[in-house]
Amino acid sequence: MNEPENEEPAFEIAVVVSRSVEQEKDEESDCVKVLVDEFQKVGFKVDRVLGLADEFIKLAAPLELMGRAAAELEIKKRTHIGMDLQFQVEDSEAFVKQPDGSTFSWYERFQCYCHLIYGLVNNGQWAVTLKFNGKKVYWETGENLLQKLESENIVKQLFPLHDEKKRKKLIWSWALKWWDFTNQPIDEIYSYYGAKIAIYFAFLGMYTRWLLFLAAFGLALHFIDFGPLQLLVLPIFFIVGILWAVTFSQFWKRKNAALLAGWPISSTVAADSVYKNPAGKGNSLQSPMELVEVWENDAIKEKEMFQRYEWFGRLMRFRNDAIIIFSIICLQLPFELAYAHLYEVISSDIIKFGLTAIYLVAIQYITQIGGKVSVKLIKSENNENTEKRADSLVYKVFGLYFMQTYIGIFYHALLHRNFLTLRKVLIQRLLLSEILENLLENSLPYLKYSYKKFRVRHKKKNEKGQPTGKIQFTSRVEKEYLKPSYTASIGKELEDGLFDDFLELALQFGMIMMFACAFPPAFAFAAVNNLMEIRTDALKLLVILRRPVPRAAATVGAWLNIFQFLTVMSICTNCALLVWLYDQEGKWRIEPGLAAILIMEHVLLLIKFGFSRLVPEEPAWVRANRARHATEAQDMCSKQLLRTISSKSFSESKKLK
Amino acid sequence: MNEPENEEPAFEIAVVVSRSVEQEKDEESDCVKVLVDEFQKVGFKVDRVLGLADEFIKLAAPLELMGRAAAELEIKKRTHIGMDLQFQVEDSEAFVKQPDGSTFSWYERFQCYCHLIYGLVNNGQWAVTLKFNGKKVYWETGENLLQKLESENIVKQLFPLHDEKKRKKLIWSWALKWWDFTNQPIDEIYSYYGAKIAIYFAFLGMYTRWLLFLAAFGLALHFIDFGPLQLLVLPIFFIVGILWAVTFSQFWKRKNAALLAGWPISSTVAADSVYKNPAGKGNSLQSPMELVEVWENDAIKEKEMFQRYEWFGRLMRFRNDAIIIFSIICLQLPFELAYAHLYEVISSDIIKFGLTAIYLVAIQYITQIGGKVSVKLIKSENNENTEKRADSLVYKVFGLYFMQTYIGIFYHALLHRNFLTLRKVLIQRLLLSEILENLLENSLPYLKYSYKKFRVRHKKKNEKGQPTGKIQFTSRVEKEYLKPSYTASIGKELEDGLFDDFLELALQFGMIMMFACAFPPAFAFAAVNNLMEIRTDALKLLVILRRPVPRAAATVGAWLNIFQFLTVMSICTNCALLVWLYDQEGKWRIEPGLAAILIMEHVLLLIKFGFSRLVPEEPAWVRANRARHATEAQDMCSKQLLRTISSKSFSESKKLK
Repeated sequence: MNEPENEEPAFEIAVVVSRSVEQEKDEESDCVKVLVDEFQKVGFKVDRVLGLADEFIKLAAPLELMGRAAAELEIKKRTHIGMDLQFQVEDSEAFVKQPDGSTFSWYERFQCYCHLIYGLVNNGQWAVTLKFNGKKVYWETGENLLQKLESENIVKQLFPLHDEKKRKKLIWSWALKWWDFTNQPIDEIYSYYGAKIAIYFAFLGMYTRWLLFLAAFGLALHFIDFGPLQLLVLPIFFIVGILWAVTFSQFWKRKNAALLAGWPISSTVAADSVYKNPAGKGNSLQSPMELVEVWENDAIKEKEMFQRYEWFGRLMRFRNDAIIIFSIICLQLPFELAYAHLYEVISSDIIKFGLTAIYLVAIQYITQIGGKVSVKLIKSENNENTEKRADSLVYKVFGLYFMQTYIGIFYHALLHRNFLTLRKVLIQRLLLSEILENLLENSLPYLKYSYKKFRVRHKKKNEKGQPTGKIQFTSRVEKEYLKPSYTASIGKELEDGLFDDFLELALQFGMIMMFACAFPPAFAFAAVNNLMEIRTDALKLLVILRRPVPRAAATVGAWLNIFQFLTVMSICTNCALLVWLYDQEGKWRIEPGLAAILIMEHVLLLIKFGFSRLVPEEPAWVRANRARHATEAQDMCSKQLLRTISSKSFSESKKLK
Repeated sequence: MNEPENEEPAFEIAVVVSRSVEQEKDEESDCVKVLVDEFQKVGFKVDRVLGLADEFIKLAAPLELMGRAAAELEIKKRTHIGMDLQFQVEDSEAFVKQPDGSTFSWYERFQCYCHLIYGLVNNGQWAVTLKFNGKKVYWETGENLLQKLESENIVKQLFPLHDEKKRKKLIWSWALKWWDFTNQPIDEIYSYYGAKIAIYFAFLGMYTRWLLFLAAFGLALHFIDFGPLQLLVLPIFFIVGILWAVTFSQFWKRKNAALLAGWPISSTVAADSVYKNPAGKGNSLQSPMELVEVWENDAIKEKEMFQRYEWFGRLMRFRNDAIIIFSIICLQLPFELAYAHLYEVISSDIIKFGLTAIYLVAIQYITQIGGKVSVKLIKSENNENTEKRADSLVYKVFGLYFMQTYIGIFYHALLHRNFLTLRKVLIQRLLLSEILENLLENSLPYLKYSYKKFRVRHKKKNEKGQPTGKIQFTSRVEKEYLKPSYTASIGKELEDGLFDDFLELALQFGMIMMFACAFPPAFAFAAVNNLMEIRTDALKLLVILRRPVPRAAATVGAWLNIFQFLTVMSICTNCALLVWLYDQEGKWRIEPGLAAILIMEHVLLLIKFGFSRLVPEEPAWVRANRARHATEAQDMCSKQLLRTISSKSFSESKKLK
């Protein structure tokens, strides 16, 4: 076993400070100096780097400091008996180590860093005078240093740093390993990026691996001529596809459970985050947990309050969903239909091109507005924690994208009833989305980065008046600072860049599944695209972007439900496609063929909803492990606990008398 | 608070012993005398009753004895902090009391009784000689007394006794309170009969209460003439009905969770029962839990084994289900269709009557054979515990009853396409099933009881040779012994009489829901029937039958899934009915009307499957309570536990070095 505790801790957080123009003579009251001193007093390993435009303070926390912070935060961690207990420095042996051998996961470390950095308070009796660029700032007693400096605009930002050693290792073992197809070092990704991102890549890998089978089937259908059986082959392909999708989503749940069994993630992280995570403060509703403190003993009142709280939150959620659905149908649908219709009607290619350009710009705005409205609406819901709020956002915004992506295709399929044009549209969309999105995804951040670098250089040149010679960025931390962060296109609140990556996947899944009967080789397109996606996404995260802030959740969340919804939709759409395919003459009669399709649809729907009962979401060994751990824990402390409880309830009953 | 500990314990178990013809002179070695002495030695309060044909030993256990047995059995009970811990006599204050103030629930008490009674072992050095009817029986050292006597046919049976005081109270507060409509003293039923029966009555009550709304709606439809809107009213009724059913099943889950929150039932009872409950021994597959002991340290092997075990069990289950479905379709379907067809074809009423009589006898045999085959098949499945096995049986046998009940109606609906005959058939079936079943259910057990009494009297008369005078049963316990027990019609294994009661409810639900459009007033029939059912079932349990053996489960189990399946079925059948209703001319064209119905069907199916996501199965206050308790428990023993774990893992790592 390697013991990373003995190694030097890596710098993982950078604090960006504006670079002061004048050099302070009075070293003692120099603002940045004081900040660095305070960090050192806490126990951080500090490295000050002077960049071209800003100054950077790199921080690293030794294990003891981290342990202290974790104990203060009352972080719950999984112990060897499977129970989650509050971290205690002296008993750190009792907690399960991470897969890479360290005590804390990246998510926990990040929490500790934030706690320590934002925990700098003036404990002295007098205010401390800080000087910055000749300006005087007074750090009052009991005031928070970081918040003070942020409000004075001296501290610009705080961002997680890449760990160069691990990053380089991952580049070689993950991003550049093209010949590994869908295999990825998921455990290492988890250690470096946290559970949520690792789960995304595990999902992408498994999805792609499973897709290869259907891709081969689809290609075979396309290139082999089945003669008189040709008409039978499409329904078979459709049924296989649906069964595939149903099986996939259930087995993914099992895979997810198996992955989580290997990662010591506390199950209470997500549940507790409302009360501890500062991000949870956006919740405008008062949680009943807080109110309960007051009426601790009044059980009936408490129950009533909980019920009121629950139903009020549910009503708000229902109202919000209704608003979103209503506005999608009344505002977005006509717009999309108008575009689809105009595109059909117009014959001139130039006008068509112009129309598409306008449309593309318009939908950018529409989705952004939709995202903002959704975030605002979600604030009035009583979702349990940040991840639940993010899920709620995903559902709402996906409605928008669903309409936008598929309504044009439905328009073709429904009104024109022409299989050839439908196929053409599908190929167009698939190719377009693959090329466009991969290009945008990877080149846009790079362009942003280059532009930022250029601006800094330009500014520097003007300041120093050096007309010749290119200015080099000497510090890696400054380069990282200029890199774009991993953010969602719909806004920074609640979701990060994973939203766009999952969205792309879901839209692709919908496209190939819902029109599977119209164009079977689409699965091959998708499989190839996803094989590339794995590596390009890895490169994007490792090379182009800053290290993302870790998130608490460890499941795919709302996206799995969206995949399941798309599966149900595709049962219906494919049946409709089949009816049209076989009913060339437009008789619309319920003949044996149509009746058979209807029956098939119902059977498939039944299988879809019944299958989850057949295969449990959690593998038996995971459940057995948990059960054994639970018994162990109970046996260990059974007697001790009993004594405490009975003496407590005895003294209480005495009091009552 | 009442303290039932200070009261005299009631007699709750009776052991039936054959009455010896000759009186033993040697009192010391009289078999029954020894048995009674042994019971008294253990600590039981014993009452010997001489009946007409048999002798009865009534047993009551004082609280101390019960506590000792519970500690020996390592029964886990809920404590005041919500955690389940092993019972300890000295800390009994720590455990939550039952709603009626006693320490143990009826299920736990019964377990303790069994443990104590079957725990009588000869601890002496020599075999004890027992005499019975002049025959000598040797009770060897280390031998189990009860099993010995059972094999010698001296001890005939062991059955739970009614507690007269509580029974009388329940008769007045529950069975005879007709004016209470659907209200029932559920907590008292739970205390007296255990969780499973209480849950059945809670379900029946809530279902009937909800049904009243649809009954009123259905009657209104029947008696009010809506004029030109008449054609629109049926689809509205259908949609309301489906929404009603979907809401009901979700709210029942919440109600169930709320009920369980009030009853201190250990959540581990069901999970552990495989390893402790002797009933679990029917499982022929070796549980991996036992195998794991051997390879404790080999994690990968363990995981593989679990997976093999899981998939093998699943495969067996799949095979069994396939066998059942196949035999229902291939054997039962033709038989039912033949009957339905013959009944249509034959014109003579007398032959019809004869045919029905033959049919009724035949299906009795068919269902019994089906039940037996299912029980045999289930033995090869690796269901977790007895209740899961019972659920598996319910699914299988319900398939049989489903086919038997509805195929005739489907035959009418599909082939004759005549609404009036369909209605007539429905009314016939509903009335017939209500009257017949209520009659059978209540009179058959009474007849059986009377016949048994008669036989005992008859025998006695012949023995004694008294030609005149009616012999009176003086002892209540003998009367109870002659009462029939609460058994299922499909066999005694796995299920008790609840099976028939739930089956009746489910078949009725299917009947009214699946043909809701054809005959809306059916809901009123059902509501009236259920109102009566509540009280007649109560009377049956309290007066006619023996007290049933309590069961571990505390949910409706498989039946809720069957209700949900019937809801889905009814979406499809009602849509089909509507199509036929509006398509009187038989054109079969997909016109706007048909398309609208198809769309409606899909939307309803979507709602059905999406609704469970909207309303959680557990009320917020139950969840919050549990979360608070869990934290409390963890905080209480956190430090203690940590020390133990870390010292353990430290010594382990030392060993490895």
